[in-house]
Order: sequence, then C-alpha cells, then structure tokens
Amino acid sequence: MAKTAAILVIGNELLSGKIRDENVPYIAKELFALGVELKRVIFCQDEVDVIVSDLNALRAAHDVVFTTGGVGPTHDDLTLLAVAQAFGQKVVRSTEIERMVRKHFGDGTTEGHLRMAEVPEGATLVRSGEMPWPTVSIENVYVFPGVPQILHLKFPLLRDRLRADMPFVSRSLYTKADEFELADLLDAVAAAHPKVVIGSYLAWDAPDYAVKLTFDGTDEAAVNAALDHVRDGIVEGKVVRVE
Amino acid sequence: MAKTAAILVIGNELLSGKIRDENVPYIAKELFALGVELKRVIFCQDEVDVIVSDLNALRAAHDVVFTTGGVGPTHDDLTLLAVAQAFGQKVVRSTEIERMVRKHFGDGTTEGHLRMAEVPEGATLVRSGEMPWPTVSIENVYVFPGVPQILHLKFPLLRDRLRADMPFVSRSLYTKADEFELADLLDAVAAAHPKVVIGSYLAWDAPDYAVKLTFDGTDEAAVNAALDHVRDGIVEGKVVRVE
Repeated sequence: MAKTAAILVIGNELLSGKIRDENVPYIAKELFALGVELKRVIFCQDEVDVIVSDLNALRAAHDVVFTTGGVGPTHDDLTLLAVAQAFGQKVVRSTEIERMVRKHFGDGTTEGHLRMAEVPEGATLVRSGEMPWPTVSIENVYVFPGVPQILHLKFPLLRDRLRADMPFVSRSLYTKADEFELADLLDAVAAAHPKVVIGSYLAWDAPDYAVKLTFDGTDEAAVNAALDHVRDGIVEGKVVRVE
Repeated sequence: MAKTAAILVIGNELLSGKIRDENVPYIAKELFALGVELKRVIFCQDEVDVIVSDLNALRAAHDVVFTTGGVGPTHDDLTLLAVAQAFGQKVVRSTEIERMVRKHFGDGTTEGHLRMAEVPEGATLVRSGEMPWPTVSIENVYVFPGVPQILHLKFPLLRDRLRADMPFVSRSLYTKADEFELADLLDAVAAAHPKVVIGSYLAWDAPDYAVKLTFDGTDEAAVNAALDHVRDGIVEGKVVRVE
C-alpha cells in the first residue's frame, strides 16, 4: 500500500476568490516525487468547528495530513487552536519559539508577537539550521502557513521523513488519436494492468498531439507493460512521442 | 441567510500534480460576484464510491453544488455514473444529446461518441443559443467538464439562476501597519460587527503596504461601519488607501 496524504486548505479568502491557492499544486508535485499518494484536498472556511471536524476525518484516513493557512496573529487565524482541539489538547506557549520571538523583536516584543509562539500542547517543532522558524507538527499532522514563499522554505525539510519506500514510476504517451478512438483500448489496458493508474488528458491547445496518456505506479515493469500495450494498440503513425 | 455553494473537483491528475486546477478560482470569483457564499471545496480521486459519498454530503449541506472533471469517453471519466448513483438513478442516453452527437459526427458516429450522450435519468439540460452543448443538471447539482475553456463557455449561462437576492458588498483597506499592530483592533472590530467578515492578508511582495484588510457582507452600512471603525483605530499615516 502506498503512503497516503491529504491537505486541509484553510481560509475564507480562497473561497471568496480574493486569493488564488498556490500551495496545493506545489505540495501535490512534491508528494508525487516522494512516492506519497495525495488522495484528498479540502478547502474550508475559517471556523474552528469545521476545521476540527475536517482535520479529524482526514488524519484518521491518511498517513499524513498538511494544513495550510490560518496561522498568524489576527482574529481569523484559528488553525493552531483548531489543531489543538482536534487532538484534545490546550494551546500553550512554546518556550523555544518565545525565545526566538523575543530575540527577533527585542524590547519591542508585544503580546501580539508572542501569539506566534502558541502551539498545541505536545506538538513537535521541525526545523533545520537554514530555516530556523520551525514547522509545528503533532502526530501525523503538519501545520503550514498560507504564504507560499514561507511554505516553500519549510516543506523541503520534511522530504526525508515523508519519502515512501517505493517511489512512483511515471511515463507518458502523446498521441494524435482522440479520446473516442482510445476509449475501448484504454478500458482493456486498465483492466489488464490493475496496478497501473492510467490517465487520459485532452490537450486543448497543444500543437502536435490530441491526448496525453499517463501511466503511474510503483511497479516499473507493470507501468512499462501498460504503456507498451497502449502503444501497440494505437493506429500506426498516431503515436507522437513517449516519455 | 446567504445562498451557499460547494465544488467537488474530480480527478487524479490534480492530486498527482500533473495538472493545476484553474476552475476553483474562476468559479469562486463568479459566485462571490453573484452573492453566493462558496463554503467548501473537495478534490477527490476518480473513484465512484468516493464521488457518490462526497456529492451526497455536499448537496445535502449546500444550496448548490458544482462538479468539475471526469466527464468524457474514457475509463477514468466516472462523474456522470457517480452523479446518477448519488441520486439513485440509472444512466440513460439523452435523445436530445444523441441527436446533436449524430449531427456533429455524421456517418462516423461511434459508440464512443455516443457515450457523450449519457446522463443521469431525470437530469435537466441547461443550454442557450450561443452554447449549444448543454450543461447536465440534476436537482441542485451542476456537472461541468474539467477543461477550463469549456467551463468558461458554460458557466455564464447559469448566472441568472444562481444570483442571490442580496449581493455581497466588499471593501478593502491597505495599511502599512503590520498584523501584530492590528490584531487587537481587528479582534474588537470583528466582535462589534458580527455581520461583517473581516479578512487580513499579509502582503509579501507589495511595494507600498504591509497588510490588506477586507470587509465583506450583505449589509452595506455594516460593512462601511466596520471599515470606518478600523480606519479610525489605525495610527495616523499608516492607512495607505481605501477601496
């Protein structure tokens, strides 16, 4: 069984169309490269009860869960409170983060700044030398900010602990055949190679092909066999290239 | 109570990072302009049981639900089958769409082409003169393809039936104050104006302000009062502009 993951994207601003999510595509690509199967993403509003309920459902059903957004000092930043509630924990002030906050803001340190040191009791802080501000983690949940630039600094530190034992093998076939011509062949190949996930994507704007087919799985021989099965079944001259 | 909506985004290709979703930002902006509150988005895999379960939960809890993706002739296009199952209906061939398919493909019409005419029994077809290919709808669910260019042709036809009685009023305030300075003020304003949704967004790259604050609601006087309350509370000279 592949290692599985889910993302809980927290924030009214994404649901009202004010801000466009940039984090799901980034995390999705990272996880695929690590061999982790992202099975589910939920975008929810900034409401503690909703976050708690979604997080509890996702963490029970997946090996690892990421939250993005809702981390900060203002009234709509409810993620850490909700994560704590989901685990039946209180929010406490991390002495380690408090020390960092006081060092950073010096004599100007305010109660607002110190809200950044609040974490669920029992949380782990994931950090490295290059990225001193830690990522809060509790059991199989990792809490990320919504700002993509900060997430991009923090996520790579987790790669080693997330990487699955068996990476995905992914191959692609580009063809001039359309999806109608391919449908019966793909039905047969999908049935004959149950360990391979076969995707079929209409190319709306591509100059030289009509459909991109993808073949993903952890068994390289099976992935190659499924691709060869499709290549052999497509009318001569309609395979543009294979990657 | 505002009219509420949810989106179910269907497709392995988005979860594996192969394709980036373009439809949620588009639909989110459209709904906000129509006064419809998008409360929830789920990205799920191409699995009938999962789609059925998610769709049934979403349509019970929201006034309107949109699905995107999984519509087409290949093995991974399972949305219409799942929508039918969610409503306890069979998939049947629409005589109207069949006629359009046969007209379009002529003597070359295949069984594969005719799969495009399959709809849940009891479905409604939403169309207009300019966009002859209809959108399949059943009760409060609308089924859209994943290809953004097609969705952009189809969605505008629904505007009139989706529009809420009371549109959202949305205003913004840009400030040089940081979120730490603003936190207590925003707590107080949010408590004093419960009908207004106040958002606070860190500007990572903006040249002339640190934080954008947004004020949304259906009561224009309340939105303006909340904005004025914040403007009066910010240290002189730190309000950059108001929109």
